[in-house]
Amino acid sequence: MNATIDNMDQEISGYLDKITSTIKNLDKTKISHLVELILSIYRNDGTIFVFGNGGSAATAGHFCNDLLKGLSHGGRNKRFKAMCLNENIATMMSIANDSSYEEIFTEQLKNFLTPNDLVIAISGSGNSKNIIHALEYSNSINAKTVALCGYDGGNAKKLANLSIHVNINDMEASEDLHIIIFHTIKRVIENHLCLGKIINNPAPQERVLLKLPT
Amino acid sequence: MNATIDNMDQEISGYLDKITSTIKNLDKTKISHLVELILSIYRNDGTIFVFGNGGSAATAGHFCNDLLKGLSHGGRNKRFKAMCLNENIATMMSIANDSSYEEIFTEQLKNFLTPNDLVIAISGSGNSKNIIHALEYSNSINAKTVALCGYDGGNAKKLANLSIHVNINDMEASEDLHIIIFHTIKRVIENHLCLGKIINNPAPQERVLLKLPT
Amino acid sequence: MNATIDNMDQEISGYLDKITSTIKNLDKTKISHLVELILSIYRNDGTIFVFGNGGSAATAGHFCNDLLKGLSHGGRNKRFKAMCLNENIATMMSIANDSSYEEIFTEQLKNFLTPNDLVIAISGSGNSKNIIHALEYSNSINAKTVALCGYDGGNAKKLANLSIHVNINDMEASEDLHIIIFHTIKRVIENHLCLGKIINNPAPQERVLLKLPT
Amino acid sequence: MNATIDNMDQEISGYLDKITSTIKNLDKTKISHLVELILSIYRNDGTIFVFGNGGSAATAGHFCNDLLKGLSHGGRNKRFKAMCLNENIATMMSIANDSSYEEIFTEQLKNFLTPNDLVIAISGSGNSKNIIHALEYSNSINAKTVALCGYDGGNAKKLANLSIHVNINDMEASEDLHIIIFHTIKRVIENHLCLGKIINNPAPQERVLLKLPT
Repeated sequence: MNATIDNMDQEISGYLDKITSTIKNLDKTKISHLVELILSIYRNDGTIFVFGNGGSAATAGHFCNDLLKGLSHGGRNKRFKAMCLNENIATMMSIANDSSYEEIFTEQLKNFLTPNDLVIAISGSGNSKNIIHALEYSNSINAKTVALCGYDGGNAKKLANLSIHVNINDMEASEDLHIIIFHTIKRVIENHLCLGKIINNPAPQERVLLKLPT
Repeated sequence: MNATIDNMDQEISGYLDKITSTIKNLDKTKISHLVELILSIYRNDGTIFVFGNGGSAATAGHFCNDLLKGLSHGGRNKRFKAMCLNENIATMMSIANDSSYEEIFTEQLKNFLTPNDLVIAISGSGNSKNIIHALEYSNSINAKTVALCGYDGGNAKKLANLSIHVNINDMEASEDLHIIIFHTIKRVIENHLCLGKIINNPAPQERVLLKLPT
Repeated sequence: MNATIDNMDQEISGYLDKITSTIKNLDKTKISHLVELILSIYRNDGTIFVFGNGGSAATAGHFCNDLLKGLSHGGRNKRFKAMCLNENIATMMSIANDSSYEEIFTEQLKNFLTPNDLVIAISGSGNSKNIIHALEYSNSINAKTVALCGYDGGNAKKLANLSIHVNINDMEASEDLHIIIFHTIKRVIENHLCLGKIINNPAPQERVLLKLPT
Repeated sequence: MNATIDNMDQEISGYLDKITSTIKNLDKTKISHLVELILSIYRNDGTIFVFGNGGSAATAGHFCNDLLKGLSHGGRNKRFKAMCLNENIATMMSIANDSSYEEIFTEQLKNFLTPNDLVIAISGSGNSKNIIHALEYSNSINAKTVALCGYDGGNAKKLANLSIHVNINDMEASEDLHIIIFHTIKRVIENHLCLGKIINNPAPQERVLLKLPT
């Protein structure tokens, strides 16, 4: 085949190597904290709200599906409750049009969120205003808050109870790592739900987990 | 922190290591072929159709955004044309309800697809019927067809003009690699669109590329 | 202007006259029952689930917005909880792909629905299988069920606790009337929420309403 | 049944009467102009772009479905090409987040729109900035523009080549009439496509229609 781009293999390898090295640098303890936090919400019948902008909106819809179906179907006797706040088009767009795009998540949270729930905000920069406002509101009513972010983590990193920060100045790499992190979490939970351990033998400390140190 | 799952770090590392080794085994030549194919469609003013089910639907919407905005904004004098076929809810659901869920992509392609266009189907198993029917239809009118698949590649691998097969029996790992592959492609194209090379100095062989060997 | 269709004005008037006469024949008592039912759910902190296929999917998203924003913003001290089950694409499509399109609503209801909640199913024919299965499941766990239908009402009319049947063999007219009915309901509720009557002076009979005769 | 709202029947009748009287006052000539305009685009292989905010976003998705499926399936030898610009979530939200919510439609039109195409903007107030910007851009490249609006028509009424103005200060009534208007148009076109008149015997004046007086 006649290529129009020279040395494309090197460019391809360059990006793939970056992903590999970023995976190596992930903070696995933070990932395990998010597993425990999600399980605490599940045991306490809370709801998990997930949202993001652009590519992170797609990631939010994807993870919501992993909770609602992947981790809930197949004969399990209890299902996850999760909502993706970036898919209800008429609602989002009427808030954006009549109030402000910066409030599209906060205004929806005001209809639903309780202190028993978990908010997972996804933002490459960590600085999208609708993300920041949603984290601030969620903190103000004592819901649990998590941020998945990239770059320097932005304000989302500081605001959330638990932040998983992919420390890299690269939007695509951040997004790739976010979906990998969510799938890692799904896999761990899946293993244990299958074994029945999580539901049948909850650790006595579980409620302590709801006040996770960041 | 008191963990409810023992040895969680090992499970986390297990999944991450699987991603790393799967990245290593990717066929970089196939990725470069898809870059060239996408550029050919772009130069010839064709449209790129992307679609999938479940998590792959999210990936399709994400890559469509990367074409329509990421690779098109910022002062470039020519934009990509791309459509994600799994986001127009009323249309998809009326086809599924009145005809069959197996035809939701094919019926939409019948409204739009020309031999000048490219179809990118995303399927972990490579065997979803709506994916297979869409590839068969697209082949029948001589549009270009690409499949991103996992597991053993399924029928999608055999049907598409170009298949990028993530050879692993793991749905989450397949999905992670698909988004990494799309971002790799985005990055390569972005570098060259920025340098102005692709638009200003197209290789004379570009039309040859439209008949890519698989 | 040179028209390509003769007598188009007559055809236009024909459809508009049909809408007008169908509006006249609406059962206003049923509409008032749905108002009371929605208010009962609201007072009891229940959630309202809305869904449909094709054009009815658009209507479902529209009414969900009217509950979440139109009837909830503007200084009211209590908001509606409502979910549209045909907008979360990854979830719907993974259920359709892995299980069946007929279960896309039922499977989501299994994650969320309680006897305290209300299900509003919209179906022109009243016979879409995903609609029927969702009503059967909701009845089985003693949630309240409502059907908006057209034509002869189909099985949905028989299954739901309360059916609002637009008695006309015309899909478009059914859909038009459904959105008019939802807006009528919104308007009535809005008037009374503004006056503060509904929240501050709930009728003592409100819990009786939850066992509405069809 | 014990009602919590007195005189609800009167309020219900009040809204329904408003819809009936608004239907009576519709400008049927404008509706016939939109039929002819849509048919001109269809004969000339153009694409129809539809979009709105909030409830109008739902209406846009609904009408897009009526074009892509209702008026295209069933053995017709030519299909409509239509895109709803408010359903591709990742794209819309990345434009809103990185540029501005006011540009979500315009930026998408820049990828696709040609002078051969038709833009149908739906806006109750006629003043949403993303709607206004999209109409201005579309006019600037000589695409055909249509606005469906309510209230006093706003700037959209002035900007569009053809405006169908529902002259009423009521958002819900405007939205109801917009969907009724779209269904009227669908019904007229359907009758004639079925008879084969439109495709086989196009009037010689059809190209004149593309310069419709408002």
